[in-house]
Amino acid sequence: MSAHEIPNTQKAVVFYKNGGDLEFKDIDVPQPKPNELLINIKYSGVCHTDLHAWKGDWPLAVKLPLVGGHEGAGIVVAMGENVKGWKIGDLAGVKWLNGSCMSCESCELGNESNCPEADLSGYTHDGSFQQYCTADAVQAAKIPQGTDLAEVAPILCAGITVYKALKSANLKAGQWVAVSGACGGLGSLAVQFARAMGYRVLGIDGGAEKEQLFLQLGGEVFVDFRKSKDIVQDILEATDGGAHGVINVSVSEAAIESSTRYVRANGTVVLVGLPGGAYCKSEVFSQVVRSTSIVGSYVGNRADTREALDFFARGLVKSPIKIAGLSELPDIFDKMQKGEIVGRYVVDTSR
Amino acid sequence: MSAHEIPNTQKAVVFYKNGGDLEFKDIDVPQPKPNELLINIKYSGVCHTDLHAWKGDWPLAVKLPLVGGHEGAGIVVAMGENVKGWKIGDLAGVKWLNGSCMSCESCELGNESNCPEADLSGYTHDGSFQQYCTADAVQAAKIPQGTDLAEVAPILCAGITVYKALKSANLKAGQWVAVSGACGGLGSLAVQFARAMGYRVLGIDGGAEKEQLFLQLGGEVFVDFRKSKDIVQDILEATDGGAHGVINVSVSEAAIESSTRYVRANGTVVLVGLPGGAYCKSEVFSQVVRSTSIVGSYVGNRADTREALDFFARGLVKSPIKIAGLSELPDIFDKMQKGEIVGRYVVDTSR
Amino acid sequence: MSAHEIPNTQKAVVFYKNGGDLEFKDIDVPQPKPNELLINIKYSGVCHTDLHAWKGDWPLAVKLPLVGGHEGAGIVVAMGENVKGWKIGDLAGVKWLNGSCMSCESCELGNESNCPEADLSGYTHDGSFQQYCTADAVQAAKIPQGTDLAEVAPILCAGITVYKALKSANLKAGQWVAVSGACGGLGSLAVQFARAMGYRVLGIDGGAEKEQLFLQLGGEVFVDFRKSKDIVQDILEATDGGAHGVINVSVSEAAIESSTRYVRANGTVVLVGLPGGAYCKSEVFSQVVRSTSIVGSYVGNRADTREALDFFARGLVKSPIKIAGLSELPDIFDKMQKGEIVGRYVVDTSR
Amino acid sequence: MSAHEIPNTQKAVVFYKNGGDLEFKDIDVPQPKPNELLINIKYSGVCHTDLHAWKGDWPLAVKLPLVGGHEGAGIVVAMGENVKGWKIGDLAGVKWLNGSCMSCESCELGNESNCPEADLSGYTHDGSFQQYCTADAVQAAKIPQGTDLAEVAPILCAGITVYKALKSANLKAGQWVAVSGACGGLGSLAVQFARAMGYRVLGIDGGAEKEQLFLQLGGEVFVDFRKSKDIVQDILEATDGGAHGVINVSVSEAAIESSTRYVRANGTVVLVGLPGGAYCKSEVFSQVVRSTSIVGSYVGNRADTREALDFFARGLVKSPIKIAGLSELPDIFDKMQKGEIVGRYVVDTSR
Repeated sequence: MSAHEIPNTQKAVVFYKNGGDLEFKDIDVPQPKPNELLINIKYSGVCHTDLHAWKGDWPLAVKLPLVGGHEGAGIVVAMGENVKGWKIGDLAGVKWLNGSCMSCESCELGNESNCPEADLSGYTHDGSFQQYCTADAVQAAKIPQGTDLAEVAPILCAGITVYKALKSANLKAGQWVAVSGACGGLGSLAVQFARAMGYRVLGIDGGAEKEQLFLQLGGEVFVDFRKSKDIVQDILEATDGGAHGVINVSVSEAAIESSTRYVRANGTVVLVGLPGGAYCKSEVFSQVVRSTSIVGSYVGNRADTREALDFFARGLVKSPIKIAGLSELPDIFDKMQKGEIVGRYVVDTSR
Repeated sequence: MSAHEIPNTQKAVVFYKNGGDLEFKDIDVPQPKPNELLINIKYSGVCHTDLHAWKGDWPLAVKLPLVGGHEGAGIVVAMGENVKGWKIGDLAGVKWLNGSCMSCESCELGNESNCPEADLSGYTHDGSFQQYCTADAVQAAKIPQGTDLAEVAPILCAGITVYKALKSANLKAGQWVAVSGACGGLGSLAVQFARAMGYRVLGIDGGAEKEQLFLQLGGEVFVDFRKSKDIVQDILEATDGGAHGVINVSVSEAAIESSTRYVRANGTVVLVGLPGGAYCKSEVFSQVVRSTSIVGSYVGNRADTREALDFFARGLVKSPIKIAGLSELPDIFDKMQKGEIVGRYVVDTSR
Repeated sequence: MSAHEIPNTQKAVVFYKNGGDLEFKDIDVPQPKPNELLINIKYSGVCHTDLHAWKGDWPLAVKLPLVGGHEGAGIVVAMGENVKGWKIGDLAGVKWLNGSCMSCESCELGNESNCPEADLSGYTHDGSFQQYCTADAVQAAKIPQGTDLAEVAPILCAGITVYKALKSANLKAGQWVAVSGACGGLGSLAVQFARAMGYRVLGIDGGAEKEQLFLQLGGEVFVDFRKSKDIVQDILEATDGGAHGVINVSVSEAAIESSTRYVRANGTVVLVGLPGGAYCKSEVFSQVVRSTSIVGSYVGNRADTREALDFFARGLVKSPIKIAGLSELPDIFDKMQKGEIVGRYVVDTSR
Repeated sequence: MSAHEIPNTQKAVVFYKNGGDLEFKDIDVPQPKPNELLINIKYSGVCHTDLHAWKGDWPLAVKLPLVGGHEGAGIVVAMGENVKGWKIGDLAGVKWLNGSCMSCESCELGNESNCPEADLSGYTHDGSFQQYCTADAVQAAKIPQGTDLAEVAPILCAGITVYKALKSANLKAGQWVAVSGACGGLGSLAVQFARAMGYRVLGIDGGAEKEQLFLQLGGEVFVDFRKSKDIVQDILEATDGGAHGVINVSVSEAAIESSTRYVRANGTVVLVGLPGGAYCKSEVFSQVVRSTSIVGSYVGNRADTREALDFFARGLVKSPIKIAGLSELPDIFDKMQKGEIVGRYVVDTSR
C-alpha cells in the first residue's frame, strides 16, 4: 500500500547530543510501523519547545540522536498494514502527541496526552524537521483538502493548544474571556478562536502597536499593562464584574497571580503557558468565597485537533507566518534564543 | 511475543448460512493482526443478539461463515507487534465492539460504536464461541486479575450496556431512577448498578417473585404492572413527582410510551432495549412544557467498560449465571427461541 | 418608594369571557404587592399565545376578566417594599412567567417555568396589554438602558424561547444546527442567535424569498422543502453526516419526525413549537443505535433572559416589527386568526 | 396568617460590641417582613464562624448589636404576606445565607452566596441563638417532617458545605475522593456523604482513634500523616494513580499544597476550609501537563440544601452532637477558643 516515489534518503536537521551541532544532512527515510503513516512533510512550524528539546533543559530526557519538530504538515505517501480511515494522498499533520497506548484510563477518557506511554514528536519520536516523518495514524491530524500547508503548520500545536484552553474555560457564547499576553504567537490565535466561539474578548498586552493588532483580530477591550495603574480594577470594570474566563498564555508569575483576582466569581482561570519553576498562587479565602477555578490545560486531543483545524479551514482564524528553508533552522534557533523573533517561523523542507 | 502452547486448531461453534446448522467442530486458531490480541476464551455469555446474528433477521448482514459470541472472557496468549498496554497472561474480554477506526469524528469523541468501520464480535468478526478469539487491543476489555471468568462474561455486554444507560440518564446521587423491566437479565443488573451509583431505585415488573428479587437486589419501591391500576400515577406518587431518570430495558412499546409520562419534569427517559420496528411516541406539548428528554443509549465505550468491570470486581454487582458446555449452544439457542430461559447462560469453551 | 405621576386609571384591552369582546377601555392601575414592580408598559408584542388565552382553547383555564399580553417593555414606576436589586426608572420587561414560588425543587434548579405555582402574564396574571402592569421583581426582565423598547418586546418571549432552545441543543461552536421553519418569527430569531453563538446554520423553509432572508440573517445552507426530493438525505450530505442539533420551531408533525432522521449520531433534536395534539415519533432501534436525544425546551429562565437580552443589546440579533396602537389589538387578533400576519406586531400602549 | 401563641419577648444571646459580653437575656421577638418566615428555633449548632462574628476578626463588619447563629432548626410560626410554598407548622432551617436579591447574575445562576446583597444569618441578620428568628422564605431550608431538630442542626451549615464541595469535585460513582482532615466535624460528614454518593473514600488524618472512626463511617483507605513517610506517594499508590477528587477541609497550607500533587491527572482539588491569609500554591508546569483543576467551593445553594437534607433524612449521614442550653453559649465559645471541643455542640433554645 506504499507509493513508489518514496526515496531511500532525505534531508533532515539532526542533533546527536543536547546543545550539539544542528546538522542539515541526508538520513534514511523511516519505515512506517503497521499502525503508522509515512508523511511527506512540506512545512513545519518552529516552536519554543523545539529549542528546549535541543538544549535538553526540561525534566524529561529526549531521544538521541533526534530530529526535532512537531508542527509538520504534509501528504500521506505510505501507511502500515492496519491503518484505518486514511488513504494515500490525504493531507496529514504531525502533532506534539505522535501516539499513545489508547487503552489506559487517560486514553479511554480522551486525555491521551496524559498517557504514560505517550510518544512525543520531535522529542521521543523523530519529528517534522525532515522530509519524511512517521506518525501514528490514530493521532495524526486530518487536514482538509485545499488547506495551505505552510499556514496550517502553527495551528497543529499553537492553534490546538489555545483552542483546547478556551474549551477548558467552559464558557458560554456572550461571556467575557481575558487573554493575558494577547498579541504573541499563542495569544493572537487565542483572540481569533475566542471570537469565532462567540465570546467577548479582553486582551492584556503592552503598547499601541499591540493594541492595534488586537483590535484587528476582533478583540473588544484592550488593557495596556504599561499604562494601567491597576489592571485588576480596570478589568473588573470593563467586564462589569470580572472575566468569566482567563487564558494565561503569558508566562509571568505576577500576571498569572493577578488573573486569580480579575476573574469573575464562579469563573475559570486557565493555565497554558509553561514558565519553568513558576507557581500559581491563589489566596484560599478569596478563592473559596468567590468560588473560582484554576485549571491546567495541556495540548488538545484528536477531537480538539479536528475542530481547531475546521475553524482554520473555514477562514475564521488566520496564522501569520514567515517562511524559511529547513536548512536555516540553526539561524532560527539562534534568533529565538536571543528573543529576536516576532511572529511564527515555518520551515520549507524542500530547501 | 507469542506463548508456545497455542494449538493450531480448536473447538468452535460455526454456521455457514443464516439459520443453518450450528456445527461444533475443529477449526483453525486465528492469527492476531499487528493491533490484535489472541485471547484464549474460557467462558462466553449467550445473548439474544447471538440468536439474531444466526437467524440473520437484522438489517445489517453478518459475515459468513460465522463464529458467534460477544461476551467472551479469557486470557491473553499472543499479541500483534504494535499492541501497547497489554502483556501475555492478562485477563481480557471480547465485547460487541471488537474494533473501530479510532480516527473518525465518532471515535474521537469516544462514541466508537457509531464508527462507520465498527467491527462487531460474533457478527462481522468471528466471536467468542470458540477457544481462541482475536480482538483489537484498543477495544478489548481489561479484566482485573482474580475475577471469576464465568461470572464476568455477561458484564461484558449486558452489564456495560445498562451501566452506560444509567450514565446517559445524567442523574445525581439521591435521585430516583425507574427501571422498566427491572427483574430480567438487563434489569437486574441495572438495579444493582443504580444502587452502587447512589440512586434510589423504583422497579416495574410483574409478580411477587419478581418483587422479592427486586428488593433483594437493593431496589426501594416496586410497582407491579399486574396489580397497579394506573402505573403512571403510582410512580408519580412514589417518587414525589416522577422519576428523575427511566431505564427502558423492557421492549414493550406501551411501556416505553408510559415512561414519557411518569418521568419527572426536566428528567430523562433512556431507551436501551431494541424492539424491532417499534416507535417511541411522545406528546410534543407535554414534552416541551415539562422539558423532558428522551435519549438513545447503545453499548458503552472503553471507559464505560473499565468502570463497569470495576463495580463488578468490587463485588457491588452480582451476575447470576448457568454454565453449560460450548457444545450445548444449539440447545441453548433452541430454549432461547422458545422463551424458556430464565437468567443468563454462559458456555464453557472446554467442553 | 413610589413615583408620584402614576395615575389612578389607565387604558387597557380587557375581555370578560373567552372569545368575548376585546374592550379598549379605562381600568384601575394595579397596586404592586411587596415583591412586585409596577411597570409603565410602553410597548407589547402580540403572540399566538395571546390568541389562545383569549379563545380559551388550551387545557389550562385563564383568569377572567383578563388583560392579555406577555411581551411588555417599559419603565419601573413603583415597587413593593421588599423588592431588591431594582430602582425607579430602570427599564423592565414583562415575560410569560410573571412569578413563581422560588422554593420548590423546580425553582431551586432554575427551572421556574415548571413551578406548580407558576403565575403567567396575560393568562393567570393581568398582562402587558395595559399601560401599567405588575410583575414579580425576581422574574421581571432587566432591559439595558438605551434599548429600543418597541424592538425589544418580541425578544421577551420569542427571543428567549429560541435562545433557550439553542442552549438545550448542547452544541459547541463550529457545529451544525438545523432550524426547521427557519424564516418565521421564531426561526428568524433562532438563525441570528445561532450565528452569534458560533454555530453553522442550516435552514429549512420554502421559497426563494425565504432563502434570501435566511442568507441575509447569516445562515449558511438553505434546504427548500418545496424543491428537495429527499430532505433527510440533502441535510445529511450538506452537514457531512447530519446536524449536531435541530431546532423544531415548525409545528408540522412530519417535519418533526424527519428531524429525528437527519440529526447526527449523538446529536440532539429540540422540540420548541407547540402543535396541539401532535406526537413526536422516533424509531427506537435507530435512536438507540445512533444514540440521539430528543429534548423538550420551554421558556427560558432568569439567566437565559439576561443573556438573550444582552445579545440583542449588542446588536447581534435584530427583531423586525410592525407597530400599531393598543386600541387596534382586536384587528391584529383578527388578522392573526386569518393567518394574514407576516412578521411580529408590537402595540404602542399610548394610543 | 400568624399563629397566636407567639410571645412578645424571648430569650436570646446578644452582644453589643465585638468581643463584648455575651448576654443571655430577654429581647423582642422580631416581625417577619412580607417575604420572611418567623421560625421558632428549637436547636442551633455552634460553628467556628460564630466565634469569628463575635470577635469581629474577619474583613466584613458584623451588624451590632448582634444575635449570632446560623445553624438553626425550628418550626414556622408566622409568615409574611407574600411568602409562597410554606405553611404554619412546617419544619424550617436557618442557614448562613439568610437571603439574597435573587435577581443579579449570581443569583440567577444559582450562586446566591456570591450575591452582592447577600444577607448572612448571625452576621448581618440576627441569627439562631434566639427562640424566634426571621428568615427569607426563599432561602430557608425545608426540613422534612419527622426529622430530629437537634441532630439536623449541623447539617444546615457543615453538612451542606461538604456536600456542595463533593459536587464541586465533579466525580463519578466509583472514583476515589480523598478527604484531607477526614475525622473532624466537616471531614466526618464529608466521608459519609461521599459514601452515599458512591465514591471510594481515602481519608487523611492522624492517630489510631481517627482511623477507627474513619472506617466506621465507611471510609476505605486511611493514610495516617503521623506514620506516613511520604503522603503523596502513599496516596498515589493506594488509588492507583491519584485521587480523582480531593476535599480540603484541613486548613493547613502544607496539606493543601500536597493535595495538588496526589490528585490524579485531570482530577480536581477542592478548597473548602478557610485558613486566614493562606495561599494555595500549585506548580504551573505540573498543573498544565497533568491538567488538574483547583476549585473553590463555598456554601451550597437552595438545591444543595434540599439534597443534603434528604441524605440526612434517609439516614445515610449521621451527625454526632452534644446538646447544651442556649444560656451556656459563653462557655462553649470559651472552650472553642481553647480548642477543647471534640464534635459539634448544639444549643437548646428552651434553656
